[in-house]
Amino acid sequence: MHKILAAGIGITKFGEQWEKSLRELAIEAALQALEDAQIERNQIDMLFVGNMSSGRFTGQEHLGALIASELGLSCSATRVEAACASGGLAIRQAYLALLSGKAECCLVIGVEKMCDLPTNEAILTLAAAADQEWEAYYGVTFPGLYAMLARRHMHEFGTTREQLALVAVKNHEHGSLNPIAQFRNKITVEDVFNSSPVAEPLNLLDCSPITDGAAAILLCKENFVKIEKPVYLIASGHAVDSIALHERASLTELKATKLAAKQAYEEARIKPSDVDFAEVHDCFTIAEILAYEDLGFCEKGKGGKFIENGESTLKGSLPVNTSGGLKACGHPVGATGVKQAVEAVLQLREEAGERQVKGARIGLTHNVGGSGATCVVHIWEKGY
Amino acid sequence: MHKILAAGIGITKFGEQWEKSLRELAIEAALQALEDAQIERNQIDMLFVGNMSSGRFTGQEHLGALIASELGLSCSATRVEAACASGGLAIRQAYLALLSGKAECCLVIGVEKMCDLPTNEAILTLAAAADQEWEAYYGVTFPGLYAMLARRHMHEFGTTREQLALVAVKNHEHGSLNPIAQFRNKITVEDVFNSSPVAEPLNLLDCSPITDGAAAILLCKENFVKIEKPVYLIASGHAVDSIALHERASLTELKATKLAAKQAYEEARIKPSDVDFAEVHDCFTIAEILAYEDLGFCEKGKGGKFIENGESTLKGSLPVNTSGGLKACGHPVGATGVKQAVEAVLQLREEAGERQVKGARIGLTHNVGGSGATCVVHIWEKGY
Repeated sequence: MHKILAAGIGITKFGEQWEKSLRELAIEAALQALEDAQIERNQIDMLFVGNMSSGRFTGQEHLGALIASELGLSCSATRVEAACASGGLAIRQAYLALLSGKAECCLVIGVEKMCDLPTNEAILTLAAAADQEWEAYYGVTFPGLYAMLARRHMHEFGTTREQLALVAVKNHEHGSLNPIAQFRNKITVEDVFNSSPVAEPLNLLDCSPITDGAAAILLCKENFVKIEKPVYLIASGHAVDSIALHERASLTELKATKLAAKQAYEEARIKPSDVDFAEVHDCFTIAEILAYEDLGFCEKGKGGKFIENGESTLKGSLPVNTSGGLKACGHPVGATGVKQAVEAVLQLREEAGERQVKGARIGLTHNVGGSGATCVVHIWEKGY
Repeated sequence: MHKILAAGIGITKFGEQWEKSLRELAIEAALQALEDAQIERNQIDMLFVGNMSSGRFTGQEHLGALIASELGLSCSATRVEAACASGGLAIRQAYLALLSGKAECCLVIGVEKMCDLPTNEAILTLAAAADQEWEAYYGVTFPGLYAMLARRHMHEFGTTREQLALVAVKNHEHGSLNPIAQFRNKITVEDVFNSSPVAEPLNLLDCSPITDGAAAILLCKENFVKIEKPVYLIASGHAVDSIALHERASLTELKATKLAAKQAYEEARIKPSDVDFAEVHDCFTIAEILAYEDLGFCEKGKGGKFIENGESTLKGSLPVNTSGGLKACGHPVGATGVKQAVEAVLQLREEAGERQVKGARIGLTHNVGGSGATCVVHIWEKGY
């Protein structure tokens, strides 16, 4: 177990941000994090930027140098990418850099500006997270890939259409309590059923949206700064699986999640039952049900029951996606993993307002790339 | 100073590789490196992939998971990007991971598949390494940016058109001795003068080409495997500057190179005069002249004389770009930084054939992103 201090956090509004550029979003989140930690820019040793596809979304690669120099920094600055897990992976690189002894203070920014592209081009850009030669080329998009996972889960375990919908209903309920969420409207199971079909059994309200947004977190050595309400990153797990679904042994579990979670639990020396709340990667409703199971929150096949019984609601035994998740808070793909960390820190500082999980001491964040080819799991602990 | 073992290397032919896909190039280099080190795949703890823009070049992001799973791995796999410095930066992330204690053996792959796009689209893709809003949008391309640097250097220091051309002549001479080089033809100063103008004063033969290729290196803890001719990575420097030229204090030096070199020299506890050979980032002829100066191989303003006097030829006092450099060996952008490392290891193992630098004990690799916004410098030492 390690104790990496989460010294400061920042986050922009998530949604359609026509008036702000990619770099403006990144800087807004970064400056908030610096202000929050009372750390000066020149104290930063390294910058890590999580971003999936700014080259295609905005014509801009090379975000490490771009954002560092906009912040007036000339330190080591690195962009990392693993599709929708880019943000979580950027946190992990900062964690490795801090453990290496080469850095005392790292700024991590997750950012994506997606709305500037027409929707059909955004969908093609996102498909670059799938296997281009074996999946995307043949026309399958992400709703289609996750629809196959949903179908198989329904077939094997009797998971119902209503259970899928309940994930979206819960996450919109949570999102309604989050000021930065893209969608703050509550929805019903009927609304999900009546929304446009996208890829059966998934309707529009089973799918996370296209979003602009940025989030930032300052990670430091344990004693780098004195913080009134310290929160620690205590473990990091990361694993991969084949990108293409046809190469996997099972369509009802994400092996990368299971492996990354195992690493993280072992490093933190905790069990799934020790987790008080979690932010999981609900890019589609089925993805959250898979996450319950693969993270060990319930038995394999019982994820549908887990949401149906209300276990993952704010008042349940293990609140999941208090931010509103990808579904309601929004999913600026490279920013999502860092947003999850920001929510974990807010919860552990008891600063989550109406969506506060009372008495939470341990939070887990779970960030997935593609249809499960990359998974990054982090564990966060209250330090006071 | 650290001692990270370079246990194995691999590299594909550089050039137009119509018959091989992005993943095939990456795997080919990786398997060579594993074979070279006599390391089994399951011994790899982490994979780092350097790639600039496969999302735009081939429609495929998410290369960490893609290449790991093609290799049958489910370990941590991360793509890093810093434009043309992506390969060097991937090596640096492996170096940090090894120092962190979380990995004993890291595979680093640099890969780019550029030739599948029409040249005009490839040029636009490369322009994503410049500042999109302040440079690329207005139509400037990389030859144009470097032409401005060349003009200013000629104005301030009297650097001549012929001195620029001599860099290309030398690198083609070196490339003629390298079996994997894209161009193995020798050229003359006249050839450079007579080649098509691209952006005055730079002609076609002042510019590195568009290339497909991959390179791989296995980096391990010092005693991870027993190697007959060990070579060590002993220092890593990394710094950034503004992407846009108009924000820089000087157009005749790359601040990022100076900062990264200073870090690397201090960590290795050596001086520039201790370097026996170097692979530097000669994306354009002027870039190599800037590198001589910014790396401390000669005084500021004397880079033109340095090449004119033959100091950087194979028989000179400090041979530079024995591989042929980006100019003649080719420049698959994400692979270049790893190719430089492969060349350094070959030299330090005394396996560089006709282009061997006799008695070399210390080599330096210098990888630049954009027009100098990112620089990564590594120092390599013969360990026997």
